Amino acid sequence: MPVPLTFKIHHKSKENAARTGTVTTPHGSFRTPAFMPVGTRGTVKGLTPQQIRATGSDIILNNAFHLMLRPTDKRIAELGGVHAFMKWNRPILTDSGGYQAWSMADINTIDEDGVTFKSYIDGATIRMTPEFSIEIQNNLGADIIMAFDDCPSSVEPQSQNLARRRHALTTRDGVLTENQHELRLLQSLDRTARWLERCDVAHQKKDIQALFGIVQGGVNLDLRARSVEQVCNVDLPGYAIGGVAVGESPEKIVEVVKFTANLLPEEKPRYLMGVGYERDLVAAVASGMDMFDCVLPTRNARNAHAFTKNGHLNLRNACFKDDIGVIEEGCTCASCAAGNSRAYLAHLFKCKEMLGGTLLSIHNIHHFQSLMIDIRLAIEDNSWSALPKRWPVLTMS
Amino acid sequence: MPVPLTFKIHHKSKENAARTGTVTTPHGSFRTPAFMPVGTRGTVKGLTPQQIRATGSDIILNNAFHLMLRPTDKRIAELGGVHAFMKWNRPILTDSGGYQAWSMADINTIDEDGVTFKSYIDGATIRMTPEFSIEIQNNLGADIIMAFDDCPSSVEPQSQNLARRRHALTTRDGVLTENQHELRLLQSLDRTARWLERCDVAHQKKDIQALFGIVQGGVNLDLRARSVEQVCNVDLPGYAIGGVAVGESPEKIVEVVKFTANLLPEEKPRYLMGVGYERDLVAAVASGMDMFDCVLPTRNARNAHAFTKNGHLNLRNACFKDDIGVIEEGCTCASCAAGNSRAYLAHLFKCKEMLGGTLLSIHNIHHFQSLMIDIRLAIEDNSWSALPKRWPVLTMS
Repeated sequence: MPVPLTFKIHHKSKENAARTGTVTTPHGSFRTPAFMPVGTRGTVKGLTPQQIRATGSDIILNNAFHLMLRPTDKRIAELGGVHAFMKWNRPILTDSGGYQAWSMADINTIDEDGVTFKSYIDGATIRMTPEFSIEIQNNLGADIIMAFDDCPSSVEPQSQNLARRRHALTTRDGVLTENQHELRLLQSLDRTARWLERCDVAHQKKDIQALFGIVQGGVNLDLRARSVEQVCNVDLPGYAIGGVAVGESPEKIVEVVKFTANLLPEEKPRYLMGVGYERDLVAAVASGMDMFDCVLPTRNARNAHAFTKNGHLNLRNACFKDDIGVIEEGCTCASCAAGNSRAYLAHLFKCKEMLGGTLLSIHNIHHFQSLMIDIRLAIEDNSWSALPKRWPVLTMS
Repeated sequence: MPVPLTFKIHHKSKENAARTGTVTTPHGSFRTPAFMPVGTRGTVKGLTPQQIRATGSDIILNNAFHLMLRPTDKRIAELGGVHAFMKWNRPILTDSGGYQAWSMADINTIDEDGVTFKSYIDGATIRMTPEFSIEIQNNLGADIIMAFDDCPSSVEPQSQNLARRRHALTTRDGVLTENQHELRLLQSLDRTARWLERCDVAHQKKDIQALFGIVQGGVNLDLRARSVEQVCNVDLPGYAIGGVAVGESPEKIVEVVKFTANLLPEEKPRYLMGVGYERDLVAAVASGMDMFDCVLPTRNARNAHAFTKNGHLNLRNACFKDDIGVIEEGCTCASCAAGNSRAYLAHLFKCKEMLGGTLLSIHNIHHFQSLMIDIRLAIEDNSWSALPKRWPVLTMS
């Protein structure tokens, strides 16, 4: 049977667990470590595929949950799949919809067979199971698809208020005690393992779509180890770490990722889901992770938040009204290269003009892609320790 | 003194009063008849200058009124002028702000010296006079600037309800009788003439900015003739027809434009302000008009309204959900050339994704620019009568 994905490692850092490589899919290759901009509903908000490509992006992420609801995965299949739908003829990854089904819907219940939730479009009751998630992703036709997992909060009960903002907690019965929390995590791990096997059985396009399993386990390293063992028990083209950056401290993220990455098979791509800020990415690469996605560059862009090597700027601040400089001196993104000033962007955000979000999304994605380029160079040159000098933002809190 | 604008006529139609030509400004040339997309606040909504340029646009329009309020004309002057501000290094035209000052503000009064209105930004009372409008436009630095005129509704009293939707009526005292309406029009004409002289005197950058006078007079041909005489009494690089397409019938538009254009100096560019649909443009070109601006292609695009040679489409209609075809078969706009389907655009509009407005604005502006190209060809080939065959929309109501 043809392989849907190959991963070739080019270089391993002498300084840490980082590596560079190339992942090849039916829609082309991408260099790793790779950053994937998020195109939730089949569009990276406000950017044409040409503009996305010009940021240096090789692969993007779409959300199966949103596309299943609208325009529906069946319609996208009829239209030729998600690549043809959004005219992005390079690699695409879809998430499984599990996280959204659990965290975004107003009413949902989870049981051994799947998640039941109400559609935010029309209130219809939708039953999402491992088999249904894979069917959706088979219909969408992305190059990399994700297992449907049970994903409870990874944070300790005392951090629940923090977590609640980003992630629905673990039961409908309210706040859990610490002991209940541990039990729920354990339940979710074992269920995730059972669901992964169901996903693998249900997957109908193994020749052209690579299914990745997802390791859970929260911040408990014993549970992470248990999850790695269970998930890697299914032979898959790649593995992901989920349930990270949902409210825990940066130090905890590093600890969990470092511990878990080291247990994953070395010869397969490792994907850290939904992470994160620049320093989180750099720490995760140093731990041996290869792929990343995050809404930060685009979501923050629409809120006038600019990423630069020297730190973050809010372009709504009054000080930028008269600032003739580009967002970042020396930046080669399409916006800075065209000379768009901070003053112009500040004006666009002040007037709620959509071009502001577009230009700043271009800059911010380009920022993350530039970081990935420098990360890859640092690995190949064994110059890892020089990275923070070129990226002062890495040492800022 | 250097001339801010030259107009060279290349060809005159043998079939009607249409002509092709080239207008040259300090920021380059544009072919006429020319269509100018509207970039209200220093941005054609959702489009980068590269995307605007790719539609075939040579010149764009900015609104002095909006830019004066935010970020202010003084700030734009400090930032190097409106070309540098929005990174559009080709010709720009600014309107005077008179129309907006009168029609958009909640509270305003008009007298012999100018218009007083409240800012929609902070409620501040602003006094706009001919001198102040020219100062604003001198600060903005567009290549073509417009006289500040008194612009009452051009329509008859019986059409006032229609007009009221688009254009504030002529006094704060409510609806006018037919006789009062005529008197008000006459007053506005004579005042416009006096204000034009004040604009001309106030204009500080005659070497690099071309001031255009504006002919008013509503649908009354006698008043139009009187206004032409008054306005052309000031020797200017170009003249415009204002107060058209504010509620009157297409036949009235044609009658007024044909009558008025014929009275304007032949060797200078003639600009029909704020018009219009495709057939309005074609009729106006046949009457001898050279320049046009209209918000239709962009404003309608943001409402999912597509312009095509074969008529208009609303991409929110359910029939497009599964339509794999591009917006318009054979269209060479960046969106159709990339293959974006009607189904994809329908999805973007359904999800309120900003990329929908961007892609359709690109298509719609390209549609108008393609019409202008074909119009210019038809003039030069003396094949005017073949235009409706290539553009069936011209014969649709």
